[in-house]
Amino acid sequence: MTMTSKAVILAVGSEMLTSTRHDTNSLFITEVLNQTGLDVAYKAVVGDNLAELRSQVAHALSRHRVLILTGGLGPTDDDLTRDAVAAQLGLPLSEDPALVDAIRARFATRGLPMPEVNRRQAQVPAGATVLHNPRGSAPGLMIEHEGRVIAMMPGPPREMQPMMSGPVRERLLQFAGDVRLMRRTIRITGRTESRAEEIVQPVYTTWLTQVPPIETTILATPGYIELHLSTQVTREADGAAALESAVAQLADRLGADMVSPDGQSVEHVLGEMLRARGWQIALAESCTGGLATSRLTDVAGSSDYVERSFVVYSNRAKTELLGVPPPLIAEHGAVSEPVARAMAEGALARSGADVAVSITGIAGPGGGTETKPVGTVWMAVALASPRETRTLLCRFLGSRELIKTFAALAALDLVRRRLLNAAWDVDWAKR
Amino acid sequence: MTMTSKAVILAVGSEMLTSTRHDTNSLFITEVLNQTGLDVAYKAVVGDNLAELRSQVAHALSRHRVLILTGGLGPTDDDLTRDAVAAQLGLPLSEDPALVDAIRARFATRGLPMPEVNRRQAQVPAGATVLHNPRGSAPGLMIEHEGRVIAMMPGPPREMQPMMSGPVRERLLQFAGDVRLMRRTIRITGRTESRAEEIVQPVYTTWLTQVPPIETTILATPGYIELHLSTQVTREADGAAALESAVAQLADRLGADMVSPDGQSVEHVLGEMLRARGWQIALAESCTGGLATSRLTDVAGSSDYVERSFVVYSNRAKTELLGVPPPLIAEHGAVSEPVARAMAEGALARSGADVAVSITGIAGPGGGTETKPVGTVWMAVALASPRETRTLLCRFLGSRELIKTFAALAALDLVRRRLLNAAWDVDWAKR
Repeated sequence: MTMTSKAVILAVGSEMLTSTRHDTNSLFITEVLNQTGLDVAYKAVVGDNLAELRSQVAHALSRHRVLILTGGLGPTDDDLTRDAVAAQLGLPLSEDPALVDAIRARFATRGLPMPEVNRRQAQVPAGATVLHNPRGSAPGLMIEHEGRVIAMMPGPPREMQPMMSGPVRERLLQFAGDVRLMRRTIRITGRTESRAEEIVQPVYTTWLTQVPPIETTILATPGYIELHLSTQVTREADGAAALESAVAQLADRLGADMVSPDGQSVEHVLGEMLRARGWQIALAESCTGGLATSRLTDVAGSSDYVERSFVVYSNRAKTELLGVPPPLIAEHGAVSEPVARAMAEGALARSGADVAVSITGIAGPGGGTETKPVGTVWMAVALASPRETRTLLCRFLGSRELIKTFAALAALDLVRRRLLNAAWDVDWAKR
Repeated sequence: MTMTSKAVILAVGSEMLTSTRHDTNSLFITEVLNQTGLDVAYKAVVGDNLAELRSQVAHALSRHRVLILTGGLGPTDDDLTRDAVAAQLGLPLSEDPALVDAIRARFATRGLPMPEVNRRQAQVPAGATVLHNPRGSAPGLMIEHEGRVIAMMPGPPREMQPMMSGPVRERLLQFAGDVRLMRRTIRITGRTESRAEEIVQPVYTTWLTQVPPIETTILATPGYIELHLSTQVTREADGAAALESAVAQLADRLGADMVSPDGQSVEHVLGEMLRARGWQIALAESCTGGLATSRLTDVAGSSDYVERSFVVYSNRAKTELLGVPPPLIAEHGAVSEPVARAMAEGALARSGADVAVSITGIAGPGGGTETKPVGTVWMAVALASPRETRTLLCRFLGSRELIKTFAALAALDLVRRRLLNAAWDVDWAKR
């Protein structure tokens, strides 16, 4: 089996195997590993169990050169990281007298004697480097063994982070040589995952054989399709140029479907467009219940362009606040093109904004009919100048919350497309 | 090596090996595994890499009888879970024609042709059971092989969860025997984690020595403090009675601070209260930008009691829509007690609702001052009968999004407390 230049992250602690707790250390560790040019091969959470822990250490080192462990360095019997690593590597453990003194001194500053159990924390595998811990009693350990680097750090983030971004990072920088990992995230709206794949596949396959090669993964999230590009380079300028060229090729193929070349949200991108024009926006929401406005105001500084929003959940509110004529609702229903149009135009007229968007639909789970099933949503975008309104019928699938999420995002995206004068042939539109 | 009756969870997807993304599916899966009496041996996140994935499958099955995989069942070339498991177990893959039809039918409901790449999702390893997926195109798969159970499910939580809590759970229940793990989640608002701990600690410590014993963990989430009670029993009735008695003791000590004895949200509980009274609610939101209304309308059937909401982001909107006098804003500022009061009273008068709540504050990161720092939020609750308005000044800490989240939840909770005639001495109030 060949060895990779990738890293494995093991978080040790049974509490992280319950249904309410996460391992969060691995995110910080990943960030530092990436900075040194190392990718993460996999990461695992393992309980306080010697056999399981040894088996994980063996498996990681059989394939990869870098192993980062956090947790399990405390003073009690269920802190087994030191023992598992030493046993698996066949390294004897012995007490480091200087370390005992340091731990004792730490207790003394709090006016406490050192409990005898804490002597365990002074056990050091033969040949290991001690990583000092000014913020806790558990020292870290770093071992070089048969071409691998193994780092063990305490679990509390404030104790782990200075070790990881200090001595461990220093050591790994030598390891990786000059290689750096660079990434870009491209966000796409209006396409299903497989449609997006069909569009971008012809270009991204060519990147694998270029120098430097770029790897691409495609990911569906609620509302977006994301492309994750990554490349490993020795010169940052080479990576930046390769990624820039890749993004330009994607922009060419994707057109208005590419919301952002750097992972920004629709609300952020739309906000920048409104700000650049000095425009104000108003919203009229029914089935989304304020969610579109809330997303838009998640962006700092959005008070510069969000004028107001009417959440017109009842028909009475649609009439009183937006001037939607009751006969229009009676004839076509609240979820209809004429009502969506009247809502957007009413919001525009009554707010004095430059653009308004309306959303009226059936979020479910009840309220659907044969002709208007759950997930049916009408939207309209009205502009003040030129005075023009465009509408779109959408059909979303999923739970109530998901339909709200899709509809809110789609409505903001529709405003973005309108400002770009782009076509509305999105995949969620109902034909 | 002996085999355990523990489970391994593998989340598949390179995006979860970056520094910004989590695997969250494993929490839900752990919950269901625990219900069936199974513990988690370890869990891992592995990228879209065939060699790595095969190595993980081999390692898991060498020691454990249950393997749950999520993700990597999509239609594209980097979706490798099916291939890795089939290859590792030596099972041939073949296309299931009925599955192709089902996937094609799913696209057809959205008026789309099935892209050819989606045929990959109809590949089934020999002997596997197909787990149908009404919420997406990727079916799940379950395999019984040499005394092990292997389940593969799609990555999106809404698609995975029904499979895990349905057919996978059913199968695993046979595995685990008689012991059942039972849980209750209690939600608390208005208290810090340490205050909540002080209040409940005297009762929960007594539960550890009773029969059956109840274990309690306390968890802070944005807006709530949660108590997670769990007990292992052979007779379900014993567990139910013990948990019921524990919840009654907590209700006694917590009073109105206990929002829900069974994990329900404030928006759900408040909705039930409004429905029981036949009341309509109106909202007037400034800094929360519609988020409180959106949360309230996340509950199915909320159109029965949500009348409308005014998202009055600009001062002009506050005046035009709610009748807040401009001199009041000029004198006290938009974030002030008189403006919060005028907003709630304006929303009540102009909607004809029975109760109205207003929120005006500084979500940040800009806009804070010495006397009104970021996180300062005024709220008011106005009742139609008896005609009365109460206000509260809050101070929240955190990012813009977190302040919006806290403020929206606190405002809904304040209406709940008002309807209960409970005291407003919440820990987030600024004294």
